[in-house]
Amino acid sequence: MPDIASLLWPRSVAVVGASSDTHALRGRIFETIRGQPFAGHIYPVSRSATVVQGETAYPSVDALPERPDLAILIVPAAYVVAELERCGRAGVKAAAILSSGFAEAGENGVQLQREITAIAQRYDMAVSGPNSEGFTNIAAALCANFSPASDKSAGPLTPSRPLGGGQVSVISQSGGLGFACFDRARPREFLFRYIVTTGNEATLEVADLVDYMLDEGKTDVFLLLIEAIKTPAKFKRVAEKALKAGKPLIVGKIGQSEPGRRAVMSHTAALAGAATAYSAVFERYGVIEARDFDEVLDLAAGFLACKGKLPVGKRVGICTASGGAGIWMADACAAAGLDVPTLDDATRAELSTHVPPYGTSQNPVDFTAQGVQKLGYAEFARIVARSPSIDSVIVVITARRSAFLEADLPKFKELARTTEKPVLMWSYTLPSERTTEILNDIGFPLFMSAPGCARTLRKLVDYRARREQSETIVDTPTPRATREETAAALAKSPAIICEYRAQTLLAPYGIGGKNAGQIVHSGDEAAAAAKALGGPVALKVQSAEIPHKTEAGAVILNLEGPENVRTGYDSALAAAKGFAPTAQIDGVLVQPMAAAGREVIVGINHDLTWGPLLLVGLGGVLAEALGDVAVAPVPLDQAQARALVRRLKGADIFGRYRGQAPADIEALTWLMVRLSQFAYDHAEEISAIDLNPVIVHDAGDGVTVVDALITKRRGGAAELHDAGSVETKAVLHDSV
Amino acid sequence: MPDIASLLWPRSVAVVGASSDTHALRGRIFETIRGQPFAGHIYPVSRSATVVQGETAYPSVDALPERPDLAILIVPAAYVVAELERCGRAGVKAAAILSSGFAEAGENGVQLQREITAIAQRYDMAVSGPNSEGFTNIAAALCANFSPASDKSAGPLTPSRPLGGGQVSVISQSGGLGFACFDRARPREFLFRYIVTTGNEATLEVADLVDYMLDEGKTDVFLLLIEAIKTPAKFKRVAEKALKAGKPLIVGKIGQSEPGRRAVMSHTAALAGAATAYSAVFERYGVIEARDFDEVLDLAAGFLACKGKLPVGKRVGICTASGGAGIWMADACAAAGLDVPTLDDATRAELSTHVPPYGTSQNPVDFTAQGVQKLGYAEFARIVARSPSIDSVIVVITARRSAFLEADLPKFKELARTTEKPVLMWSYTLPSERTTEILNDIGFPLFMSAPGCARTLRKLVDYRARREQSETIVDTPTPRATREETAAALAKSPAIICEYRAQTLLAPYGIGGKNAGQIVHSGDEAAAAAKALGGPVALKVQSAEIPHKTEAGAVILNLEGPENVRTGYDSALAAAKGFAPTAQIDGVLVQPMAAAGREVIVGINHDLTWGPLLLVGLGGVLAEALGDVAVAPVPLDQAQARALVRRLKGADIFGRYRGQAPADIEALTWLMVRLSQFAYDHAEEISAIDLNPVIVHDAGDGVTVVDALITKRRGGAAELHDAGSVETKAVLHDSV
Repeated sequence: MPDIASLLWPRSVAVVGASSDTHALRGRIFETIRGQPFAGHIYPVSRSATVVQGETAYPSVDALPERPDLAILIVPAAYVVAELERCGRAGVKAAAILSSGFAEAGENGVQLQREITAIAQRYDMAVSGPNSEGFTNIAAALCANFSPASDKSAGPLTPSRPLGGGQVSVISQSGGLGFACFDRARPREFLFRYIVTTGNEATLEVADLVDYMLDEGKTDVFLLLIEAIKTPAKFKRVAEKALKAGKPLIVGKIGQSEPGRRAVMSHTAALAGAATAYSAVFERYGVIEARDFDEVLDLAAGFLACKGKLPVGKRVGICTASGGAGIWMADACAAAGLDVPTLDDATRAELSTHVPPYGTSQNPVDFTAQGVQKLGYAEFARIVARSPSIDSVIVVITARRSAFLEADLPKFKELARTTEKPVLMWSYTLPSERTTEILNDIGFPLFMSAPGCARTLRKLVDYRARREQSETIVDTPTPRATREETAAALAKSPAIICEYRAQTLLAPYGIGGKNAGQIVHSGDEAAAAAKALGGPVALKVQSAEIPHKTEAGAVILNLEGPENVRTGYDSALAAAKGFAPTAQIDGVLVQPMAAAGREVIVGINHDLTWGPLLLVGLGGVLAEALGDVAVAPVPLDQAQARALVRRLKGADIFGRYRGQAPADIEALTWLMVRLSQFAYDHAEEISAIDLNPVIVHDAGDGVTVVDALITKRRGGAAELHDAGSVETKAVLHDSV
Repeated sequence: MPDIASLLWPRSVAVVGASSDTHALRGRIFETIRGQPFAGHIYPVSRSATVVQGETAYPSVDALPERPDLAILIVPAAYVVAELERCGRAGVKAAAILSSGFAEAGENGVQLQREITAIAQRYDMAVSGPNSEGFTNIAAALCANFSPASDKSAGPLTPSRPLGGGQVSVISQSGGLGFACFDRARPREFLFRYIVTTGNEATLEVADLVDYMLDEGKTDVFLLLIEAIKTPAKFKRVAEKALKAGKPLIVGKIGQSEPGRRAVMSHTAALAGAATAYSAVFERYGVIEARDFDEVLDLAAGFLACKGKLPVGKRVGICTASGGAGIWMADACAAAGLDVPTLDDATRAELSTHVPPYGTSQNPVDFTAQGVQKLGYAEFARIVARSPSIDSVIVVITARRSAFLEADLPKFKELARTTEKPVLMWSYTLPSERTTEILNDIGFPLFMSAPGCARTLRKLVDYRARREQSETIVDTPTPRATREETAAALAKSPAIICEYRAQTLLAPYGIGGKNAGQIVHSGDEAAAAAKALGGPVALKVQSAEIPHKTEAGAVILNLEGPENVRTGYDSALAAAKGFAPTAQIDGVLVQPMAAAGREVIVGINHDLTWGPLLLVGLGGVLAEALGDVAVAPVPLDQAQARALVRRLKGADIFGRYRGQAPADIEALTWLMVRLSQFAYDHAEEISAIDLNPVIVHDAGDGVTVVDALITKRRGGAAELHDAGSVETKAVLHDSV
């Protein structure tokens, strides 16, 4: 593993391509580095100039008076490979490549980028980029980039009174967004540690840097801006490490929409998995998603300030001097899924001695402008914080005038010291500088957006709950023999595995079997099979070339009596032949009709980035039209499967909805667990599995897998999505 | 009608209750008014002081040297009535009451507030408040309030270079939020005209002030912050007037959630209708809803800057120098329901001559940092704006450095002058002051939030489309005789009107009738009726005391043959008697079984504020669990009914979804139109109507109303929601 410390903490830096023209990026970066009090040596390297911005320039890295730790390359793409090679030979241990024109710029660029990877490996160099915007190490005052956010004129690198006493690092694939994150955080006075942009990630990826910083132990909150994850397994490993360490990863996933993904593919030349898949994986590893800068920074503020006291539940107490503002905050809390309960009687009684009659002690507690003049904000917050009805407090303030807060400072500090519940502040007016200082001094995060404050609080609750869950999946690994036999059977199966074959493959995993049925080859055989089964039957033509049998008319339901079954056999076959005249037909499946119950769909889809994902959704045409599905990476345990089912918007129908008996959720989640294990064991072989529909019977009566279809992966990654089953994909895409 | 001009444009002002103590609100307001260059006279009125803040004070309004146009009352609630009476007698034409302790403070306060209303009416005074925070008239430099936003120290009242050349007025029930809106808008440099807070609205309501300002013609964009609308009819009339005038009403509706509504009721002593109902009415009148300050101000910026050129469609072209930022903006646009299409070939060809190979001309157009250095932002924006593939342009910039924009200024001005498409700007870094100036000078609105920018653009599109719709409802008014006969029949009906009676009431409006069936009183009559109908029948026990027949087991479906029908009759009756032994049973309805089709629910609910609303939703247990419903005020015309159906998330199932024949949408919307007319005609009588289920057959085959239930209003407003039908209400509430 290359030494990332050489990259981020160099004692000396060479800027290869430095220029005196400060309007050009090559001049700006040199000017920017020198504009900050970085203590190490900075050497300009230039093939054309002997002096750059007043400093002696050197013609090449190997001509420097000492071997630099870090080389910053900002020369045209065509020269990068040679310069990097020269650095490697000179013993330079790290390079930041800011030049563009690599994998994002066509086939020639892809080739150049491969050479960068090879050189970095050969010399064991820590290389960031290419196509990056460099990095900043705040503590070292090293701004190795040309971002306007690093200009001296943009303000100091560190705030006078940092919020929460912790440090934030930004790691971004996009240069512009990474430094913008730092820039936009300035008024909030976060103490940053690093801003690193990774560009095309020829070698170092976002996860490598997170890993380094976790080991370093100085970063408390990570802000990651990601277009596409290159090595999913590495990301998962590091995400799990961060979760265990309690260091939140806040991720802005860029390219969630169809036009966005199209642009990501063009921009980073990476295959971008589905947004749903990213979200499912993030959920699994406790990674917190944010949709825009404001949400990223609100979350950062919340975690920085509340890291020692994350809320144990969703119940929030709101204190306000403005009735309207308190109500708007209550709306925001409700929209974020928080509870705003009426406070307990004892707390209300205590409040009522201070709240004027035109205020209210319920919740939001409106102590009115007169109330705040008399008692201050802190005393109300203290009373509310002690209420057993709530787990956290939001204080609504008007931050333009700092006078009230100033007067309250000792009481607020006392509250911060004594309460074990997090206290967040929302201001409906713009804050004065002094207000920000006071609050940072106390350690309370200040939000300007009510929804932003409420959503942050909700994520603090969720993160705590996620960390308190058992970290290990209670696995039920497949016996080796079963796994190997299934793998062999899968290898021999056709690309599209129709129902009766799928049944055979899935049965050893405990999937299906309830009404598997029997394959027949004549009307008489069908009638005999039906008789043996008893009751009405379904006939289904089996052919790899007719995966969607119902649409082909090759399924006939509810047949009873030998004559009807014989006639049914003939018409099903005729329909199949009419639909696909050349199809090879394996036979007709005779199945008992499934008993009634709730219809669901359970499936597997292979995502380009994340591999197999399990999907569960309510079944039937309507539910599919509504796209009510939930997705998770495999394997799942029973608890995770239950949580997934609960995430369905229509999950109520599994309960005693409208007086019916509850559904057999245990059987459904067991099916999900088993299918997830199947997909996990055979991830490389499977493109998609559809169990559609699955009937969930009343509690104790189990589930019936009414139809099953497996589609194998045919070739390289690019082909994968073509191979998926149409229905499951449609549902999955609807939900994206 | 009182003269609102006396309130907002007084030549002289008396501050009743003025004090020298500037820490008290009574001192602050006097200080605040005098802190701005208001040209009129300001008289302190005080019972205790002869000099207030250095000015001669007067003991009472009638002791002033002249009759003031406006009296500001900031004395304890107990004295307000006497002081207002004194003002009235002295001929003062307007009063702003800032005192609290009225309807928001219990029964005694309610009584005091009634007296205020009476005095205002008696003297025809324009009275705002009580429990308000006063107002600001920007052009007159009159800050009749104690808001910190009006402090001299908070900055000038008008910006140096206002955005868009138009004016914005804020009218808010909440004092804190109203002035906060002004305060938070400061960095955006809007030219405000008025900020008026209306408090408890004893007389003047938000709509009265909008009406005045519409007549005045100086306000281009209205920002309304509303907790509960007092006189819904007035609001609707004024909203329609604003829509016709093209003056957007941007509304922050405070109290949308359950805890929020609970607090509104306690805060303003007003009955708050359901959030769904407000949204339905806002939608009808083109009122634009915003969830928080940021959205309010983003929308204001969009409408101010783009009012002459609202986009004709949803297609947006994005220009960016940062790939990542462009992609994030594309995500935001997709999330807002905008299209980001790949640009046409001609435009791409033109762009490609300027975009480096590591950029892209597709859309987002990523012309890279190098591209912007060479050609500037404006030239790229100009090329994209001319593309026939798009209706609007978003330019992604980094606003920290203004140099690029400065250099581009002439080209940007040229673009603003020549393009007929709106151009919006999003910056991923914080803007310098100079950047804001430059953009305001050009007239382009600058957004800091990508989702905020995208959502604003979407609302601009929607507002234009809404204004271009026919303004008049193509009404099919009910013939007078029908209306009167139905009213008479309704008056004689019981409180709960079961199916067969409901059929009779609804039939003259063209509702139902397809399989009305026949009421019978014995098994033999039932068998005879079934024979006459032919085919299988349903039997349904009819009783006002068993409104939910199915749950009582009092409905039996699919009976065929005289014996089965007779047995069915007996068992249905037995079940009904078992369920409700004392219920009076009117008979049993024999109905043909409805043909198959898509199941929907169509209903009416009486909202506390807005009166009857029509609801349409997908039927069946699952759809109801998912709460997929759409709501609109009555009456509706056919086009509005179609639009409502299209808003259902599962609307696809009405089309050729999965190869089925399309549904008879015309018949469904006709049913909705007729039911809406019924509800409109009998609004005062009806609490709820449930047509549930309605079967929508294939196109041309009409609809079948399978069940109908009408619930009458029993008494005062407070009782109304108790009377509603359980199912429809459940659905309605789920969707809130």
